[in-house]
Amino acid sequence: MAIQLVTTAAELRAASSRLLARKHGTSQGLVPTMGALHEGHAQLARTAVEQNDVVVASIFVNPLQFGEAADLDRYPRTLEADMALLEAEGVDLVFAPGVDEVYPDGEPLVRITAGTLGQKWEGESRPGHFDGALTVVAKLLHYGMPGSAPGTLPAYRAYFGQKDAQQLTLVQRMVTDLNFPVEIVPVPTVRSADGLALSSRNRFLSAAEAEAALVLSRALRLIEARANAHEPLGLASAQALVASQPLVELDYFDVVDPRTLEPLAENCQDTPFRGEALAIIAARVGPVRLIDNIPLSS
Amino acid sequence: MAIQLVTTAAELRAASSRLLARKHGTSQGLVPTMGALHEGHAQLARTAVEQNDVVVASIFVNPLQFGEAADLDRYPRTLEADMALLEAEGVDLVFAPGVDEVYPDGEPLVRITAGTLGQKWEGESRPGHFDGALTVVAKLLHYGMPGSAPGTLPAYRAYFGQKDAQQLTLVQRMVTDLNFPVEIVPVPTVRSADGLALSSRNRFLSAAEAEAALVLSRALRLIEARANAHEPLGLASAQALVASQPLVELDYFDVVDPRTLEPLAENCQDTPFRGEALAIIAARVGPVRLIDNIPLSS
Repeated sequence: MAIQLVTTAAELRAASSRLLARKHGTSQGLVPTMGALHEGHAQLARTAVEQNDVVVASIFVNPLQFGEAADLDRYPRTLEADMALLEAEGVDLVFAPGVDEVYPDGEPLVRITAGTLGQKWEGESRPGHFDGALTVVAKLLHYGMPGSAPGTLPAYRAYFGQKDAQQLTLVQRMVTDLNFPVEIVPVPTVRSADGLALSSRNRFLSAAEAEAALVLSRALRLIEARANAHEPLGLASAQALVASQPLVELDYFDVVDPRTLEPLAENCQDTPFRGEALAIIAARVGPVRLIDNIPLSS
Repeated sequence: MAIQLVTTAAELRAASSRLLARKHGTSQGLVPTMGALHEGHAQLARTAVEQNDVVVASIFVNPLQFGEAADLDRYPRTLEADMALLEAEGVDLVFAPGVDEVYPDGEPLVRITAGTLGQKWEGESRPGHFDGALTVVAKLLHYGMPGSAPGTLPAYRAYFGQKDAQQLTLVQRMVTDLNFPVEIVPVPTVRSADGLALSSRNRFLSAAEAEAALVLSRALRLIEARANAHEPLGLASAQALVASQPLVELDYFDVVDPRTLEPLAENCQDTPFRGEALAIIAARVGPVRLIDNIPLSS
């Protein structure tokens, strides 16, 4: 069956209800995206299609989470290619609302606030970013809820990439703190063959910058290998590796608690590593800011 | 059928689903309260029972919306009488969670923020009050959503008193801005025979204070009569009436746009009144702060 495009919340609700009824579905999945889709998003869609009878992908470039108008303006819009990618993965419905549908009264008065967890790491470079992102995610989680269905209420799941680790942590925290009736499913980061985490912004890198950017994943792998070997993580030497790459301007590189995003106590980094943590890195490479991370478990 | 008491979100979801199935219900109503119920709450419950197949009332004194610990501590808790009142109105389920159920990790990190609309009027005297109130209302709206049901997804409505006009405006705004799948139903203020708006805090008034407090509704009625007669509202003379009562310390008394809560332009008050507005008043009387309002439509 061909993928369907809807642009209003009412159409989305009606179309997803029809699909659930027609398929005798018992589950609905939501894949929120900003478009400019790549293999990382395909992985989100694939996971959602495997786990749910009806899958909705949303495409909305949310003005609320962009600090600089220039970054919003140049954010790539590629609806036709995005639809083709989602159709190939078996997504049923694309919800691509305009700004007027999502914010009919202009900027929302009542919002989600991410609190202190939204002010560190990415939040330090992008003030207000996570408040804006969580506000639109709250809206999308409500838009994407299963409508009428035969029998019991369908299960409801939403899919987020581990690539945006802080966003994932905050979305999970929002769903818990505000009791959204949805299960958040994290999906592992997809990388190019040489290790670069896929991102819609990678297209702005020159060949030399793309090559230089590989130091991010290389440094994370170094930490991961030490964690797997129960060795001290040796964060300083991994940081030095990044610093040795002149095209890469490091912003942060740390090992944190995955739930609180607080750096692990120093001794965890000098002593053999055991436990669960997240190595996170952000750097500016040429025209773009790149982020990456790797979960540690040992 | 006897009213049921549940104390966890999981029990609530299971019990309301069973009730919807048993009644072949197509609608569920939620009446969020802080307990200490009076005839105003009975009116909320009655309206909800008239309009829905299954009705849940929640009773939770939300620490997040109290500025002073003393006010939280002395807020009356009267569960047994509350249950009896709700049962008499035909409410099916009472959800009375403990603080640990609602805030298992302590204070929530991710919250709702009421924005500028939450900082004026009541918000000026009670900083953070509406952020706390909206945060728990967001949670309650999610807790109270209909679970599984035969056939189509049940309608979902939540009931709020017009007495707390600013809270009602903010809840409506939150539901719109964040697209909660619920219909907010406002219920008119209930008054004692002599005009005092019912409030759980009225019990703290002495007889003389209760008598003095009548000037609030009297002043609002004056404005209402002028609005109905298409006369200038004459706010100043109504304010003078309140000021003449020595036991009443006026905080604010104004006529505002019901949606934005901004005061009407001066000329609306000097010229014959036409349109929709809200007269709002707040005053300290003895140990308590009282609020009241009256919708104007002419």
